[in-house]
Amino acid sequence: MHKARVLAGTLRNSHVGETVTLKGWVQKRRDLGGLIFIDVRDRSGIVQIVFNPEVSTEALQIAERVRSEYVLEVTGKVVERDPSTVNPKMETGEIEVVVDEITILNKAKNPPFQIQDETDVAEDLRLKYRYLDLRREPMQKTFKLRHQTSQVMRNFLNEEEFLDMETPMLTKSTPEGARDYLVPSRVHEGHFYALPQSPQLFKQLLMVSGFEKYYQFARCFRDEDLRADRQPEFTQIDIETSFMTSDEIMAMTERMMKRVMKEVKGIDIEIPLARMPYDEAMERFGSDKPDSRFGMELVTVSEAVKDSGFKVFSSAVESGGKVSAINVKGKASQFSRKDIDQLTDFVKIYGAKGLAWLKAEGDELKGPISKFLSEKEVEELRNLLDISDGDLILLVADKTNVVFDSLGALRLKLGKELQLIDESTFNFLWVTEWPLFEYDEEAGRYSAAHHPFTMPASEDMDKLDTNPGEVKAQAYDLVLNGYELGGGSLRIYQKEIQHKMFEVLGFSQEEAQSQFGFLLEALEYGAPPHGGIALGFDRLIMLLAGRTNLRDTILFPKTASAACLLTEAPGTVSESQLDELSLKLQVKEQV
Amino acid sequence: MHKARVLAGTLRNSHVGETVTLKGWVQKRRDLGGLIFIDVRDRSGIVQIVFNPEVSTEALQIAERVRSEYVLEVTGKVVERDPSTVNPKMETGEIEVVVDEITILNKAKNPPFQIQDETDVAEDLRLKYRYLDLRREPMQKTFKLRHQTSQVMRNFLNEEEFLDMETPMLTKSTPEGARDYLVPSRVHEGHFYALPQSPQLFKQLLMVSGFEKYYQFARCFRDEDLRADRQPEFTQIDIETSFMTSDEIMAMTERMMKRVMKEVKGIDIEIPLARMPYDEAMERFGSDKPDSRFGMELVTVSEAVKDSGFKVFSSAVESGGKVSAINVKGKASQFSRKDIDQLTDFVKIYGAKGLAWLKAEGDELKGPISKFLSEKEVEELRNLLDISDGDLILLVADKTNVVFDSLGALRLKLGKELQLIDESTFNFLWVTEWPLFEYDEEAGRYSAAHHPFTMPASEDMDKLDTNPGEVKAQAYDLVLNGYELGGGSLRIYQKEIQHKMFEVLGFSQEEAQSQFGFLLEALEYGAPPHGGIALGFDRLIMLLAGRTNLRDTILFPKTASAACLLTEAPGTVSESQLDELSLKLQVKEQV
Repeated sequence: MHKARVLAGTLRNSHVGETVTLKGWVQKRRDLGGLIFIDVRDRSGIVQIVFNPEVSTEALQIAERVRSEYVLEVTGKVVERDPSTVNPKMETGEIEVVVDEITILNKAKNPPFQIQDETDVAEDLRLKYRYLDLRREPMQKTFKLRHQTSQVMRNFLNEEEFLDMETPMLTKSTPEGARDYLVPSRVHEGHFYALPQSPQLFKQLLMVSGFEKYYQFARCFRDEDLRADRQPEFTQIDIETSFMTSDEIMAMTERMMKRVMKEVKGIDIEIPLARMPYDEAMERFGSDKPDSRFGMELVTVSEAVKDSGFKVFSSAVESGGKVSAINVKGKASQFSRKDIDQLTDFVKIYGAKGLAWLKAEGDELKGPISKFLSEKEVEELRNLLDISDGDLILLVADKTNVVFDSLGALRLKLGKELQLIDESTFNFLWVTEWPLFEYDEEAGRYSAAHHPFTMPASEDMDKLDTNPGEVKAQAYDLVLNGYELGGGSLRIYQKEIQHKMFEVLGFSQEEAQSQFGFLLEALEYGAPPHGGIALGFDRLIMLLAGRTNLRDTILFPKTASAACLLTEAPGTVSESQLDELSLKLQVKEQV
Repeated sequence: MHKARVLAGTLRNSHVGETVTLKGWVQKRRDLGGLIFIDVRDRSGIVQIVFNPEVSTEALQIAERVRSEYVLEVTGKVVERDPSTVNPKMETGEIEVVVDEITILNKAKNPPFQIQDETDVAEDLRLKYRYLDLRREPMQKTFKLRHQTSQVMRNFLNEEEFLDMETPMLTKSTPEGARDYLVPSRVHEGHFYALPQSPQLFKQLLMVSGFEKYYQFARCFRDEDLRADRQPEFTQIDIETSFMTSDEIMAMTERMMKRVMKEVKGIDIEIPLARMPYDEAMERFGSDKPDSRFGMELVTVSEAVKDSGFKVFSSAVESGGKVSAINVKGKASQFSRKDIDQLTDFVKIYGAKGLAWLKAEGDELKGPISKFLSEKEVEELRNLLDISDGDLILLVADKTNVVFDSLGALRLKLGKELQLIDESTFNFLWVTEWPLFEYDEEAGRYSAAHHPFTMPASEDMDKLDTNPGEVKAQAYDLVLNGYELGGGSLRIYQKEIQHKMFEVLGFSQEEAQSQFGFLLEALEYGAPPHGGIALGFDRLIMLLAGRTNLRDTILFPKTASAACLLTEAPGTVSESQLDELSLKLQVKEQV
């Protein structure tokens, strides 16, 4: 007989006396004084059930065969626990269920690791047995939070009259951007689809179509070498609007994030959010995604030290570079020479040739370079860096980007190690006034800093011809706690500007036409002013869930080599499958 | 200056006197008596704006340059229309906006076809300029309905505590089922991902993970030759549950569909929905997805005619086939011999060797075969088919499946042509008690009728060994107006049964292990009883929107040869892209 089921985690004192049926997994079993106690787990939580020979010897006998992770159906009566056995740590800890009927719905082998909150099991094993790893409470919570967050965002966007719209996955390969995943066509021999890196062009076409407000939780694909915070497929909240200014788009995004923070985390954030121009972010944080939860900002000291006798400083400034410093407040005594040597090795990873340092002792600055500094120079440094007794000053002199990269990374490293970061805060920040182009020294040409459809700042239009490197973009990135949550821009909606853009990027007319002809043509048929934003959903969940590994926010993630340890994808395919696709393997080496 | 915008379609009499700013497209322009009238269209609808030299000659001069589909920003005053020019067909027809400022935001070339509700433009042209096609009102409405429907379903599923969960797109190729789209791996030479035909295995693994209630609007892929109602990528509402019976899953689906019909179409449907066993559906409708909106059901007349002198009848029955008939009530006089010859040609498409017919004239049945029928046989036919004067009886005698296929198709054809179908009704129906296997005569083996994870009926477990062809599945399909909306089943959750299933399907132990080893292993670690359903979202939208072409429900659909006429996907890729994937083209012929 099929009985209505009650969820384990919902049972309370108020249920005492009721007969209930539970279905779930065995969290653990204990035998005690002729009784058997089992913690039964289902999606709602855990409740303790008891087998008592005075109630049913038959049930007790079955319970004796039960092991961890068995799937059970039990029926019994909810009773108050003896006061001495009440467990205040369990939400159901005041009651237990005395079982008179039990069915083993399925058995379980001894799992390769225990299903418990904290685990130090190797990640590879967790990924191979992902279905067991996902049973752990922190994982269950993360994916409930993921569900809830997407609902909050969808509700917000629906209320704002956005339409949830689905763009194609089988689309066209465009060499701009990251590497595409390709999908061979069977019908069109020698032709390939590409999986989308983002729905960028389609969402722009939807604006040309007059839909005005689009959103999608879009799966995107990039065949790049993976880092800890990258996956070959990821989800972004993709938004596009017509007729809105960038201020309006940012304000809408802020309202959405405020709603998420309130409903998911119970935290009120103040909007409008702070904004910081790109140049300022680099100067102050050495990063285009500043972690503004702590200070220890970079300070440019080029002017103060450029005439010092220390050659490294003067020549860095002379050759167009700079000298910047951070003040590790009051920590001079914590850093031995050896410690500083290690920091020096660290900044070298980022291309810095060295790390200069000074320790404030009373009124003096001491350290290997102090002898090169005049009194006036010391005074200027003291003022610029707000130095007081016991401070440690770390300086890098180099090309500007090396100074930013190395000191920016050092600031983050020390911020974490010295526990300067309040992990409970969520600091949002807009980075604005981005450069439109990056100069690729190797290729000797400009590439798009965001993507080639980004609208240049109106006041910089003239510079597209004369000085592309100085053109700003109408683009904005949303940063949270030092992570880039996402970014957006106004898009080019006039054909002439789009053509000019391709020209600066070094596309020939033919290349532009063959790759983006349909977009250029669409711009001729009444394209409205439009713009949007895309937020990385996996990363947002990672931050909201307080995790540090992106893989913990994706149900079935890939490893760093883009493999699925559970299904063993990618796998081999048959000769005939390749034949149908008119393909032949040319394997260079065995993997 | 940036002005707050009002939506065109929302303006009413109550706005008279207000100064408003509109942004939108030129639907049409008329010059009349020195004035210019423009219908401005945005996502909300259309409003008429007027340029009057007495208000602004400057605006009028700009308006003279405006053409269809230009994008405008205008500011002006809402005024009541002269009673003689009120347009009751427009929601905004009582007012117009007298413009004093106009900006042309973007120009438009003359579109290749007019943006109007009805169009007889070739579909290829519509697909090439999809962004213009999508501007048409019926398309805008369809995608708003699609948005709304997904919201209603999501709200329902969220309320029922399902979790929206994302499964991978880059997964493993499994030869079972339709042909996979493959994605070559760059990192793992000679290895391939496959795009999912459905999230079937992952949703089952999520049940093993203890999530219990999963849903996803899942993109699925099948590399099959396309028909009018197939696309290489499609969306399904994918649902899986643990611990629910098939009755509970069907009831939950019914509540969801009831909500959709009510909120999207304003129609109350009665639940529980009708259920019909597969065998009955075949007998009565010659189809596993009966269109129950009209009668003219198939009637088995084998017994009545098996001993008649008409050899075709008797030998069909003798050789294990059957004779079935439909009664085209009162239409005998409408069908000439030539008409019936055409029907005969039609049933031959489905493998029938011929079509016998009889016309009821008074008490007699007339036709070429009447001479073979005894009085008693005529009497039995009259009773079985409820024949009265003027009826046309059409009979097919053949192998059972040919009789069902051909007469089932003929019934649908005549139902449409004779307008027996009330197009305003929505007839839902469950088809249940499916066979678990189909016998593939060519391959000489059984294949899974649904998929190899479908649970056999408990009372048929013994027959898995002895008579697989007679085993029923715990499966259910939801049919709407003769379309399969989707289907589901309980799944196998015991390893032994899954092994047996693979055995019947002719898998060796090694094959089963290499393809589905991870599933078989997962079943050993405490897999709960589970089951679910998947509904075709594109097809549902097609039916709700009253369309007949699946492409009208997908924003950027592919053609019958799986091409995108807009972006020209699939396209060629560079030699170096293939090199990176260790692939070489072996093109057999030029396309």
